[in-house]
Amino acid sequence: MTHPEPSAVTVLGLGSMGGALARAFLAAGHPTTVWNRTESKAAPLVTAGALHAGTVAQAVTASPLVVACLTGYDDTRRVLEPVTATLAGRTLVALNSGTPAGARDLAAWAAEHEIRFLDGAVKDVPDAVGRPGTLLYYAGDADVFAEHAPTLRALGGDTVLLGAEPDLAKFYESAVGATLLPALVGFFAGAAAARGRGIAAGDLVPYAARWLQMIGEVLPMLAAEIDARDYSSGASSVNLFLAGADWDLEFAREAGIDDSWLRPLHDLVRKAAAAGHGEGSIAAVTEVLGAG
Amino acid sequence: MTHPEPSAVTVLGLGSMGGALARAFLAAGHPTTVWNRTESKAAPLVTAGALHAGTVAQAVTASPLVVACLTGYDDTRRVLEPVTATLAGRTLVALNSGTPAGARDLAAWAAEHEIRFLDGAVKDVPDAVGRPGTLLYYAGDADVFAEHAPTLRALGGDTVLLGAEPDLAKFYESAVGATLLPALVGFFAGAAAARGRGIAAGDLVPYAARWLQMIGEVLPMLAAEIDARDYSSGASSVNLFLAGADWDLEFAREAGIDDSWLRPLHDLVRKAAAAGHGEGSIAAVTEVLGAG
Ligand SMILES: NC(=O)c1ccc[n+]([C@@H]2O[C@H](COP(=O)([O-])OP(=O)(O)OC[C@H]3O[C@@H](n4cnc5c(N)ncnc54)[C@H](OP(=O)(O)O)[C@@H]3O)[C@@H](O)[C@H]2O)c1
Ligand SMILES: NC(=O)c1ccc[n+]([C@@H]2O[C@H](COP(=O)([O-])OP(=O)(O)OC[C@H]3O[C@@H](n4cnc5c(N)ncnc54)[C@H](OP(=O)(O)O)[C@@H]3O)[C@@H](O)[C@H]2O)c1
Repeated sequence: MTHPEPSAVTVLGLGSMGGALARAFLAAGHPTTVWNRTESKAAPLVTAGALHAGTVAQAVTASPLVVACLTGYDDTRRVLEPVTATLAGRTLVALNSGTPAGARDLAAWAAEHEIRFLDGAVKDVPDAVGRPGTLLYYAGDADVFAEHAPTLRALGGDTVLLGAEPDLAKFYESAVGATLLPALVGFFAGAAAARGRGIAAGDLVPYAARWLQMIGEVLPMLAAEIDARDYSSGASSVNLFLAGADWDLEFAREAGIDDSWLRPLHDLVRKAAAAGHGEGSIAAVTEVLGAG
Repeated sequence: MTHPEPSAVTVLGLGSMGGALARAFLAAGHPTTVWNRTESKAAPLVTAGALHAGTVAQAVTASPLVVACLTGYDDTRRVLEPVTATLAGRTLVALNSGTPAGARDLAAWAAEHEIRFLDGAVKDVPDAVGRPGTLLYYAGDADVFAEHAPTLRALGGDTVLLGAEPDLAKFYESAVGATLLPALVGFFAGAAAARGRGIAAGDLVPYAARWLQMIGEVLPMLAAEIDARDYSSGASSVNLFLAGADWDLEFAREAGIDDSWLRPLHDLVRKAAAAGHGEGSIAAVTEVLGAG
């Protein structure tokens, strides 16, 4: 078996994440060209072996694969608009955060200019980039992905194509990421209550971490119920959560913490009960959240 | 080293959880007496080697340690009120769910009747009871705990006393448990959005599980910030979440899912920014949740 030479790659945007991406390509032996609006951020990467391009046009010319990691889609488009002719026929990979609509718009713009395009997301912190277990998922054309996957794998061993629709990565980001803020606010509320009683937030951590792990372990069962639209698995029921709602509020009152964020969650549980799912598993709340 | 005979124990309440508790005591070799309001639920336990008591008084007389696992504190008190004289000098352990106030009330009632008392919580599903890694935490007198810990460890290898204040286990339950409903609703919202697009909830599970794991991994850092009241760790900022708030709403609109539960969470993030924590880590939301 022959191992081809690692192919050239260009990274645009050298913030926390873009810098980590460039370092990972370099570590994997790819000739790496970098560009950043604020030039000074390129210096440490040049020390690490990167080529520094003074203009976007030069950066794009250097490689068949251009990875952009700017703040948002608008920034990416603004930076690339003047070099569309150079980009034509090359592959652009956008690894910024954003909405599915943002990804669709950039994909349409790329198609219009005959730029091959993948959208993606880094599912981890910059420090984890380049490790075998780090997950990145992509959306876009399967041939484009297949061609560049060996290079993209330098960013994380768990490199996945979700599908051909160009907004799928951002769709998954939004759909899966919906647990983040609510879970954090739940923890912060517990920490605020603990503080009021002289208990450190740190004392809650091992139990909260185990709790999150337990939630992760019941998700397959809850997802199976949601997909079957049959909520009779015997998981904790809507009615059980309804009973717990009163305790939540009593606890918030006693601890003197804000309960404004809890009430709409309780309303959803109540709505699921009213829709006839009281004895069903809590996953039946999915039925009252919309989207037929 | 001599191993004492496993001591006798009584279990009141043979629902999903109480039945699992009784089976774990039996499996560990403890002479186990059981009682349940609906007598038929005792039959499988008798087959497994338990003694079935026809009355609460007989059940309580049988053992120095009485574990109650009824629905709530009121039920426990109602069942035990007629046998307080028999319970005096014995140890009662309440393993039901409830509020800190409920635990305090039952502790006061027990003290009044000279019943030794521990309150506790099983931090797992009934199937996990009796395993080495299963966590149960308790609150109450350290001597009472020390005396019965060898027996209680039959229910789970990770058996912990949180402290002497009798409501501590239920306080931890409420403080730590505050992540459950919000995290689940976040997942259900993602599942509802996915359904609207023909993507199975099951497809989201591996990513959502990894997401929960990542949240668990950042909790120590966030808790350290909360305890130091210094939100400059460099974790994702309040402003970053504020930018994400607009994307959340855009996604909900596009996917046709309910966003009523999201808005109060965004309001808290906004409140933290208004309080001067915009550049600080998202853990600063704790400062606007109340309790000094
Ligand atoms: N950091 C993480 O943990 C993480 C994780 C997953 C995803 N992401 C996503 O990755 C993307 C980048 O994040 P980051 O953490 O690297 O952000 P960052 O440190 O703030 O860096 C932002 C980068 O974008 C550039 N930029 C922004 N607007 C620009 C414009 N109009 N023209 C030219 N350059 C522009 C900045 O250039 P200057 O240096 O000149 O300002 C900088 O290189 C974001 O979408 C973020 O949500 C980050
Ligand atoms: N199951 C779990 O996953 C789990 C996990 C952690 C904590 N818990 C907690 O453990 C406790 C018991 O849960 P479970 O799942 O075992 O509930 P369950 O299956 O509904 O059983 C409830 C038990 O309480 C008895 N009971 C209720 N009210 C009573 C009354 N007034 N007088 C006499 N007996 C009464 C029931 O007797 P009958 O059989 O006569 O109705 C039954 O034995 C609850 O507080 C629950 O929140 C459960």
